[in-house]
Amino acid sequence: MLESEIYDWLKKEGINTPAYKLFNLSAELDVDFYPVALKIESPKVVHKSDVGGVVIDIKNREELLAAQKTILSNIKAHGIALDDNDRLIATQMCKGIELFFGVVTDPVFEKVIVFGTGGIFVELFKDVCFIDSEADEEEIKRAILQTKISTLFTTGFRGTKYELTPAIDLIKKLQKTEASELDFNPVILTPNSLTVVDARAKFDKLQPQTKKLKSAPQIFNPQKVAIIGASEHPEKVGSALAENVAAHPNVYLVNPKLKTLFGKQVYNTIGALPDIDTAVIAIPAQNVKQTILELIPKGVKNIIIITAGFKEVGEDEVFLTQLAAEHDLNIVGPNCLGVYTNDLNLTFATPDVHRGPVNLISQSGAILAELMDKAPVENIGFENIVSVGNMADIDFADLIHSYTGSNPLNLYVEGIQHGKNLLRAIRKSKVPVNIFKAGKSKAAQKAAFSHTGNLSGNYEMFVGLLKSVGVKMLSDTNGLLYPHQFKKILVITNAGGEGTVMSDLISDKMFELSAAQLNELSQVLPYNWSKNNPVDIIGDSDHTRYLDAIKVADNFGADALYVIVTPQHMTDTSKIADIFTGNTFKTPIFPIFLGGELVENAKRLLREKKIQFFEELSEGASFL
Amino acid sequence: MLESEIYDWLKKEGINTPAYKLFNLSAELDVDFYPVALKIESPKVVHKSDVGGVVIDIKNREELLAAQKTILSNIKAHGIALDDNDRLIATQMCKGIELFFGVVTDPVFEKVIVFGTGGIFVELFKDVCFIDSEADEEEIKRAILQTKISTLFTTGFRGTKYELTPAIDLIKKLQKTEASELDFNPVILTPNSLTVVDARAKFDKLQPQTKKLKSAPQIFNPQKVAIIGASEHPEKVGSALAENVAAHPNVYLVNPKLKTLFGKQVYNTIGALPDIDTAVIAIPAQNVKQTILELIPKGVKNIIIITAGFKEVGEDEVFLTQLAAEHDLNIVGPNCLGVYTNDLNLTFATPDVHRGPVNLISQSGAILAELMDKAPVENIGFENIVSVGNMADIDFADLIHSYTGSNPLNLYVEGIQHGKNLLRAIRKSKVPVNIFKAGKSKAAQKAAFSHTGNLSGNYEMFVGLLKSVGVKMLSDTNGLLYPHQFKKILVITNAGGEGTVMSDLISDKMFELSAAQLNELSQVLPYNWSKNNPVDIIGDSDHTRYLDAIKVADNFGADALYVIVTPQHMTDTSKIADIFTGNTFKTPIFPIFLGGELVENAKRLLREKKIQFFEELSEGASFL
Repeated sequence: MLESEIYDWLKKEGINTPAYKLFNLSAELDVDFYPVALKIESPKVVHKSDVGGVVIDIKNREELLAAQKTILSNIKAHGIALDDNDRLIATQMCKGIELFFGVVTDPVFEKVIVFGTGGIFVELFKDVCFIDSEADEEEIKRAILQTKISTLFTTGFRGTKYELTPAIDLIKKLQKTEASELDFNPVILTPNSLTVVDARAKFDKLQPQTKKLKSAPQIFNPQKVAIIGASEHPEKVGSALAENVAAHPNVYLVNPKLKTLFGKQVYNTIGALPDIDTAVIAIPAQNVKQTILELIPKGVKNIIIITAGFKEVGEDEVFLTQLAAEHDLNIVGPNCLGVYTNDLNLTFATPDVHRGPVNLISQSGAILAELMDKAPVENIGFENIVSVGNMADIDFADLIHSYTGSNPLNLYVEGIQHGKNLLRAIRKSKVPVNIFKAGKSKAAQKAAFSHTGNLSGNYEMFVGLLKSVGVKMLSDTNGLLYPHQFKKILVITNAGGEGTVMSDLISDKMFELSAAQLNELSQVLPYNWSKNNPVDIIGDSDHTRYLDAIKVADNFGADALYVIVTPQHMTDTSKIADIFTGNTFKTPIFPIFLGGELVENAKRLLREKKIQFFEELSEGASFL
Repeated sequence: MLESEIYDWLKKEGINTPAYKLFNLSAELDVDFYPVALKIESPKVVHKSDVGGVVIDIKNREELLAAQKTILSNIKAHGIALDDNDRLIATQMCKGIELFFGVVTDPVFEKVIVFGTGGIFVELFKDVCFIDSEADEEEIKRAILQTKISTLFTTGFRGTKYELTPAIDLIKKLQKTEASELDFNPVILTPNSLTVVDARAKFDKLQPQTKKLKSAPQIFNPQKVAIIGASEHPEKVGSALAENVAAHPNVYLVNPKLKTLFGKQVYNTIGALPDIDTAVIAIPAQNVKQTILELIPKGVKNIIIITAGFKEVGEDEVFLTQLAAEHDLNIVGPNCLGVYTNDLNLTFATPDVHRGPVNLISQSGAILAELMDKAPVENIGFENIVSVGNMADIDFADLIHSYTGSNPLNLYVEGIQHGKNLLRAIRKSKVPVNIFKAGKSKAAQKAAFSHTGNLSGNYEMFVGLLKSVGVKMLSDTNGLLYPHQFKKILVITNAGGEGTVMSDLISDKMFELSAAQLNELSQVLPYNWSKNNPVDIIGDSDHTRYLDAIKVADNFGADALYVIVTPQHMTDTSKIADIFTGNTFKTPIFPIFLGGELVENAKRLLREKKIQFFEELSEGASFL
């Protein structure tokens, strides 16, 4: 599309554009709206600046005629032969702050709007946000606030405040445009208007994604389960899998050769099974299809395919997607670790899984195995665990859409395929969604690709879009083990240095102490305490002073208390540990025992009683 | 200084300025260098834009006369009464990219040059760097490269590369200027020139700092040491202090009442002592001065004052600075934890300090105590430890300047006073200096102030200036325990997910594998290994495969090997731990054991043998 055509199209769309006039290449130029920019207008020239095809700030006719000569000779010098169909376009110059508005078509998120600082600074500062084409006004605003330039709209700048409405209106128009790619740069911002002064657009017809968002709450409600490929060989996953659930009366083991396993009867054929709703498959890849077909008459709805050897090694798995659609199945996997739900541990990871509030959905089996192994040490329990594997059918979006509980959903994501579905599911979700996204750096993207064959996509776009739908992005995989959403933390410490470092780590989450609360603390603390959060109770604190401070602070209404213990002269850290093993408090409380030898015994005491604690300040910050 | 005066001054300094002309307020304006900006020029108007005192882009006489009216009525409307001494100034408009150059006088670093993106973006993007007034050209370049706008000079932008020399020349001129405060904004950049088109400057006479950089290598070489205030009461610091060195033949204990302590003779008066070079003082604050005076005849050079109760609680300590100067003493502290050096543990922290390569200098006693307590658990040894306390005399700069060893110096810094001395010492240092700086956030600055009474200063300026003199800024206090400067890491892992997360954490430090090295690894690894760093040796890896991979990788020349072990199906983590306890390798090797229950035994084995390992990926990244 040529610049003049774009202006005509924009005008039709109700978007401000500058005055312009078209000329033949050899015309005697003049306009009545100086200052102007003169540019070549030709389908042979895509990037006008690169071939000297633009002259700006032309103030009068004399300069305009000079610019005409310059442009034509520049283009000739670049070896481009212009002809009678090509034109020169003179556009009125506008003054103001330069913004960028664009449309991109992403393989994962499809049509996405890009907004931010324009002009030459688009590339230098990358101060842009990403807005889904389905975002509503609130979501658009949340996205815009992720840019630095948004300060112009919020607090204003040097006494001038800029209206946000024209930007939102333009974004809404771009959400509806049929352009597949579009750059408006710059768009000139004045306090109450926007004018698009340079534009580029493409209208390729692209195939939209067809996967529908699934609601399959039965995934989280298996009742009668068959383990296909239960094994007696401990080195096989079918052994761990069977052992993890053998004690459950409504779980049936299937193996063609065995009679009993882990004290339980074994079915030799699928045909011999009673009706089931869920099957876990851990047999060689080439037998998976036939097995699923045999399972269908048994009434199965959920199929969890542990078996590897599909897409991740270049083999076909489209048949799984098709089987799911044709027979209304919910297929998890293939190439996954399994599912823990409804108190059933249908995984081949640790048997030591306890019920609790954490929902963990992971694209990496190893990350899942690591966190599951760590959870009992910290006394953390799970409501649901899903290893999504290759996501041939059920993906993150479907799981969010199917969850009917009330705890947050924590996701470990490397790369996804159906971005719009994920955004839709999160918009509808009644519970918070927290995501750790791997693959920020080029090195990690390469690593992720080499181990899953999945492209991990544009990191900034992923994060920007997900934040705009309200997702909290986690900075550490440890955050995946916590269901908390703490906003205001009170820190109690016996060391000022550690208090300072902690303040840096959780700076925007520091609980504000009222005058009355400061006074209450002063009643139990020495005169030289910090009178501030972090509450520095001074290096000579013993367990009594810790307990006094905690008891007072327990009533303040903070979301959590972090209690830092550093081994200073005469600190009896074991007695301080007893505070946490021997008392209960209203506020969630997290001891942080720093140091080494002098806190070893304290840590042992806490581990024995399964009291959750941290050994590093950064650990305490990592799940916030 | 008025704008026209600044232009005249700049011209004298050889700095490009635009053409300008001054007019009386009621003059009939005209110039011969349109387009121009018209501005008020009056000592009554400091911020011209704020009172409507600027009109830009004036293209002809008609517009110039209109601008004159506008400006005069705007200023009147702001209630400012102009008189016959005030002027209007018309300056030629220049086109180009807007940069910022400035001078600030900081209480810590004194005169500092600021450079970066200009125009309205100074405030919005804060894309600026800080340059010491004593920086040489290389240091100026390192500073400039910290800005995003520096891309214009390095890779260029849209085909145009900009010369760096004019910017460096202008910075060098600003280093020499007598201005105490100066803003050039904007400075117009074209491919080979700079023109200052708006300027503001102040020439306040400020008192320069007088503290001289000290060289006192004897601090790190105490030979005969007296402990003043050795105590028999275990709750007193004088007890721990005495106990930590009692066994040393050249350490003398002083206490007015005791005969012996920890099996050692006690001196009852300072007068009774033999000659000493170093004294450690742990007696009440009010007796410190008299004690120092008594010590001087004994030939003492180094005085370490443990005693608190000075500046940090608002008491005078200037007398310490004066005593140090008058009697040529090196005073460490007051209010500190002590010093470990020359194998002498002159601290009241843990007695369990081993000799090794780490130099740790800390402004927080608690951080120091925590790290000293952690060190033996990880088999980390120290060359020197200094708790600097209030820095009445010896500060970070003096210590760096006094160190004659060959290991890196690691500093924990909250706030400093003599910035230029620190920069000078680091420039001269023959060893790398690594710094963890607390007090980035407002919350942390408040916390640091409440526990030390020290302002922690402008964080960005501190980091910018220190990076420019080559300091590595640490992101985690754990980094203070490591003397390493690893640039290229090879990661071996049995899990792709963890490999991806690790790649994100150390993305710019991933060792690049050559084709030959890939081939060598392929000889010992299964066909489906990652063929990439991280070296994913696949989830079913046993200890044999780990050892094979490590042995091959040990010859590659990486600075370090990180070996990630996640407990996957059938992983015998204890046998893998034996690799690290039972073998030695050429390359520094760091096992990372992730998970919980399934790695507990492995961790225990490593702890028993004092093998350094990590329990979190982020720990492995934190010291790089």
